[in-house]
Amino acid sequence: MHNDGPLDHLIRMLSGLPGLGNRSARRIALHLLDKRGTTMLPLAKALQTAAENVKDCNICGNLDMRDPCSICCDHKREQSKICVVARVSDVWAIERTHAYKGLYHVLGGLLSALDGIGPEELRLQKLLERSKAGKCEEVILALSATVDGQSTAHYIADRLSSSNVKITRLAHGVPVGGELDYLDDGTITTALKSRSAA
Amino acid sequence: MHNDGPLDHLIRMLSGLPGLGNRSARRIALHLLDKRGTTMLPLAKALQTAAENVKDCNICGNLDMRDPCSICCDHKREQSKICVVARVSDVWAIERTHAYKGLYHVLGGLLSALDGIGPEELRLQKLLERSKAGKCEEVILALSATVDGQSTAHYIADRLSSSNVKITRLAHGVPVGGELDYLDDGTITTALKSRSAA
Repeated sequence: MHNDGPLDHLIRMLSGLPGLGNRSARRIALHLLDKRGTTMLPLAKALQTAAENVKDCNICGNLDMRDPCSICCDHKREQSKICVVARVSDVWAIERTHAYKGLYHVLGGLLSALDGIGPEELRLQKLLERSKAGKCEEVILALSATVDGQSTAHYIADRLSSSNVKITRLAHGVPVGGELDYLDDGTITTALKSRSAA
Repeated sequence: MHNDGPLDHLIRMLSGLPGLGNRSARRIALHLLDKRGTTMLPLAKALQTAAENVKDCNICGNLDMRDPCSICCDHKREQSKICVVARVSDVWAIERTHAYKGLYHVLGGLLSALDGIGPEELRLQKLLERSKAGKCEEVILALSATVDGQSTAHYIADRLSSSNVKITRLAHGVPVGGELDYLDDGTITTALKSRSAA
């Protein structure tokens, strides 16, 4: 039986997290109550510590213990490149590749007519300021290949067209390890058009 | 980039919860950091409150704000029936049906030779005591139809065979709404054997 108390409240809160439903929230709550001292209280503490100590970087929008974040403060990184991404998780995804050594700019989302997200909702003004500052030579638009991602990329490219900054995008094509047979027509068409010397 | 700090620690803790992996833990952590005041700190508080206030019922093993739990204390419930289940989530599942008005006994798991769980690890002694106390007339074994569930049921039935208590099990058969075509042979065989007058 659900208690009309803290347990019920906890399950309701857990089930509101992305990817969790009622059943998984109940399962997690029971798992935690089984391990109160070793998991539940430390998790509560970890949540509180993170909430109090993790800051939004005022320059690029990344999350870090310090503001400006450790990427913005790292003078070994190429200060001439700014990689524009929608979310912090995209920064993490690109950092995991170790293939990029420039700076980032997290928009905090994508333009979306459906969801009513306009340019004011995103960190666009700050991006324009950064790209017009002396050091920036290239803005890399690393946005999703969705309608919202591409219209955001178009919008940014348009706003930056008057500046001297080079604007680039991620390449479209066959994913590494991908089988042609399972790819959609759009990807194959793009990959054909953008073919390179073997 | 993962911070080697509270955020990284939080993601590691979240990814250890049942059903969550690295990716979902990252997603949840970012969602929470987006809503620190409205979700993250209240969740930390809810975890702490639940950890401190939810108790194991000393009689049946259910989780509740009070000990003995509100089911054990409810004198309107049939005191003559004890429904034996493996976990608290099974109590919740049965309570959701509103089809049972007796008491419960949560074993805290199932006998499992593979996982090294013997009779001492489960709340079996307490069940024997309860079933031998005057009021108990029927013990309903509501355990999973798995190898571990059935061997646990056998073990309990064996231990209780000397007492005067009636021992029953959940019926096996076609799940309500289930299509015959998709059922395994074992279920169909059992359902045929246990057929009843239409």
